[in-house]
Amino acid sequence: MKILTFDTTLRDGTQGEAVSFSVDDKLVIAQKLDELGIDYIEGGWPGSNPKDEEFFRRARDLKLGHARLTAFGSTRFARNSVEEDRNVRKLIEAETPTVSIFGKSWELHTQRALGVTEEENLRMISETVRYIKDHGREVVYDAEHFFDGYIHNPAFALRTLEAAQKAGADVLVLCDTNGGTLTGRLTEICADVRSRFDGVLGIHSHNDADVAVANAVAAIEQGFTHVQGCMNGYGERCGNANLCSIIANLELKLGHTVVGEERLQGLTSVARFIAELANLPLRRDQPFVGQSAFAHKGGIHVSAVLKDSATYEHISPKAVGNHQRVLVSDLSGRSNILYKLKQHGLADRLTEDARRELLERIKQMEYEGYELEAAEGSFELLVWEALHPGLHFFDVESYEVSTRMQGSAASHSVATVTLRVRDGVQTATADGHGPVNALDVALRRCLSKLYPSISEVRLTDYKVRVLDSKKGTAAKVRVLVEWSDHRRSWSTVGVSENVIEASWSALVDAIRLELMRLTEKDEAIEKAVEDYCWGV
Amino acid sequence: MKILTFDTTLRDGTQGEAVSFSVDDKLVIAQKLDELGIDYIEGGWPGSNPKDEEFFRRARDLKLGHARLTAFGSTRFARNSVEEDRNVRKLIEAETPTVSIFGKSWELHTQRALGVTEEENLRMISETVRYIKDHGREVVYDAEHFFDGYIHNPAFALRTLEAAQKAGADVLVLCDTNGGTLTGRLTEICADVRSRFDGVLGIHSHNDADVAVANAVAAIEQGFTHVQGCMNGYGERCGNANLCSIIANLELKLGHTVVGEERLQGLTSVARFIAELANLPLRRDQPFVGQSAFAHKGGIHVSAVLKDSATYEHISPKAVGNHQRVLVSDLSGRSNILYKLKQHGLADRLTEDARRELLERIKQMEYEGYELEAAEGSFELLVWEALHPGLHFFDVESYEVSTRMQGSAASHSVATVTLRVRDGVQTATADGHGPVNALDVALRRCLSKLYPSISEVRLTDYKVRVLDSKKGTAAKVRVLVEWSDHRRSWSTVGVSENVIEASWSALVDAIRLELMRLTEKDEAIEKAVEDYCWGV
Repeated sequence: MKILTFDTTLRDGTQGEAVSFSVDDKLVIAQKLDELGIDYIEGGWPGSNPKDEEFFRRARDLKLGHARLTAFGSTRFARNSVEEDRNVRKLIEAETPTVSIFGKSWELHTQRALGVTEEENLRMISETVRYIKDHGREVVYDAEHFFDGYIHNPAFALRTLEAAQKAGADVLVLCDTNGGTLTGRLTEICADVRSRFDGVLGIHSHNDADVAVANAVAAIEQGFTHVQGCMNGYGERCGNANLCSIIANLELKLGHTVVGEERLQGLTSVARFIAELANLPLRRDQPFVGQSAFAHKGGIHVSAVLKDSATYEHISPKAVGNHQRVLVSDLSGRSNILYKLKQHGLADRLTEDARRELLERIKQMEYEGYELEAAEGSFELLVWEALHPGLHFFDVESYEVSTRMQGSAASHSVATVTLRVRDGVQTATADGHGPVNALDVALRRCLSKLYPSISEVRLTDYKVRVLDSKKGTAAKVRVLVEWSDHRRSWSTVGVSENVIEASWSALVDAIRLELMRLTEKDEAIEKAVEDYCWGV
Repeated sequence: MKILTFDTTLRDGTQGEAVSFSVDDKLVIAQKLDELGIDYIEGGWPGSNPKDEEFFRRARDLKLGHARLTAFGSTRFARNSVEEDRNVRKLIEAETPTVSIFGKSWELHTQRALGVTEEENLRMISETVRYIKDHGREVVYDAEHFFDGYIHNPAFALRTLEAAQKAGADVLVLCDTNGGTLTGRLTEICADVRSRFDGVLGIHSHNDADVAVANAVAAIEQGFTHVQGCMNGYGERCGNANLCSIIANLELKLGHTVVGEERLQGLTSVARFIAELANLPLRRDQPFVGQSAFAHKGGIHVSAVLKDSATYEHISPKAVGNHQRVLVSDLSGRSNILYKLKQHGLADRLTEDARRELLERIKQMEYEGYELEAAEGSFELLVWEALHPGLHFFDVESYEVSTRMQGSAASHSVATVTLRVRDGVQTATADGHGPVNALDVALRRCLSKLYPSISEVRLTDYKVRVLDSKKGTAAKVRVLVEWSDHRRSWSTVGVSENVIEASWSALVDAIRLELMRLTEKDEAIEKAVEDYCWGV
């Protein structure tokens, strides 16, 4: 059966303490979720903050192939008319095909938090649903705290669902807002609601009792066909149900159609991409998509797995785009790359030596801590360099950057860069707001006469992460830089014990790559990179 | 009902990719688990490695008040006599009151991995169980891959349990070794086994399908009374079932007796202690015990929680030794701070002017992009400085750091720091792996004669984020640094357009704070900071 997925990474996910996305991040993530085959993308709460309003304004230019963009908000406020409710107006102004609104199902909330009667609560629900339906939107009704409300007073909770359905809601979603309901109890309540209501029922669970994914799956087993969650389980407190795990379980273990088997193979890559944008390390042990999810350490496990991987693997890692790892060595990633290059006819254009060298470089870089899957720019550059060994724009002779602060003045950075280029040696010195800015300006200054167009490229994000925290300030760091030339954006990565060196190498890669692209266009490379970095 | 807890953090937990404990660590953890009220502590596999043998030798001196130490191993090898089996001999030599042994329940394994007949498999189980019983030990029989085996061939799987029980096993544990069984199916299988076998039944689940805790709870709901798991969900691949979550769920939601209500209040502290020894950050969003588990960010949630905490909290955080936190990043935050300072009598110790100045500084810092709720170290320092304006350790006269690279050599950073301290001006120069490391070393070198103890403080994590990506490499960045002095950890934050300046200010704050703490102890400040950063 087709199960509808409703992703709320961009709304509920950002309530997570450590999670924060820029509007640009959100637009890119929406595109990715669409490519993965998600059915609904909840983009934000336009009535609650101007950043979310901006997102919906700019999202009108997104080219979504499949997903329905969804704006989130509450029912009208108590004692307001729905026409005059600012929050409801913002929902309509977001101009999304689908709107999700939440209402109260728990007497504790209507009485203690809102101070309204049951009748007024039911009116708030039905008037808001009807108003939004009258504006031609699909309405997803989120019954907030449904399970707590049902346990406290089932009749009260059920009447709120009736009100929403009668007013025209297209989907009724039962929310375990506080995340405290255990799976046994939740299953019973879902079964009761399923027996009383026709139409699409949905589940929205939180992980406070560490059972959010099991709860979502249990509701589906009771005949629900709409499931809400966040990628990587982001969200307030302990997070929302992890949509990655839910999708994989439903598709691979219960035989439902969710995103389809083919797109499911992009799951790991999308999960990692979103973690990079959130600047949060993807949990190593995250089910299905984590780096350790199919990693075998124990001796007995390893030898059995090599005989038959089903002995210690519950699914084939390929089904979700992940791979088996036998700790100590990792060969599968590299053969994947070769496979992809072959598929696009690129491997045939490489000599045997160039191919071996490319794979060796990738192996070495992965070993050093580069994550090429998140840095499609760096990967693309490697492929260009292997295919066009003669295409060489500049060599770095030296650079130096210093930052000083005296007394109470602001600090000040100066960089000097010396390059060997086609017409000789170029040196430039530049001031900057910081060392990376100073290096950036000096580097461009060296190249600007020969290649004026590189002034278009600019940095849009900069992230630094420690790779090995045991060594204190001497630890190795990975710098991931996002770039844009106003037409497209890409990332490059640098790894070093020195944050300046890591930044410098990401900077040089970005400039070098742009020069490669400006000189000639190679669609086979573009396609191979897209396949590799946006989902093998 | 009393549910027996069986902790395998020290055995299965160490199969986790990033988890590693010394023998000393393991001894300390065993003591802690005993204090928490765990019933069984599985300490290792003496037949598999000498480190675990050493653990059991030294564990004889442990004074455990309650827990039974358990050695783990396999049934005898195929075609061995049990008396001559080295692995079985090591189990006896471990001299633990309880021994757990695993045997095969799945034909795939007996045929493909071991290559033995069903009859030989049953003899391996029963002879080993009987031999260990004859040596006076309690025997916990782990039926490896029980659920996969049952699904493949139920009769085969059930006969292995019969063999173990007839031979005298005290507990039969059903293991979902590959972690792929969903809760619905697992519940049915547990119900069937419960109906066929008397005595104590146990559950051992893994998290590959993201439902391990739900599976453990479901088995208990079917009448099982023994539950296995690891603290913080450590373990191979995606980890074992998180015993912290299981204990809290069983005790608080199903009304069973597990460790008892009083000891349950030590749960958060034990979980964090074990994470410290594993040198792994405790997951912020970990259910029940994580720092964000009861943290509220959204405006609506905050105002409701302040009226009645049950509105958005599934349990009282105190029940597991955790705290409620209201994240401050808006105006309500500042009134919260004042309220907290008042509550601890700190506001009264400030003059009207000092109070206003403190609030103004916090307001200004938040405006500039500092995130004080994530940087309790920086916040604590502000409070110290407001209360003790005379407590002044050093002034920074100047610093300079430069990074250079020539040709193909690795880059190189050198820093010079000049401080004005109690006994005059101190200057030091240092090399470093990177600019932050060089500044760190030079700063400590200036202070080391006066304050030798600051050498204890070390960096454990370093994160950089761009605050305004529109400005390219000239954007403002926020540097968040986590520190530890082996007793506690805290974060400091720096914000600047210059990444070096931002890192420097986080670095100086961390050192200054440690000096404040070393000079005098102020419990009111500690309490206020804990309340503010760990929970309002």
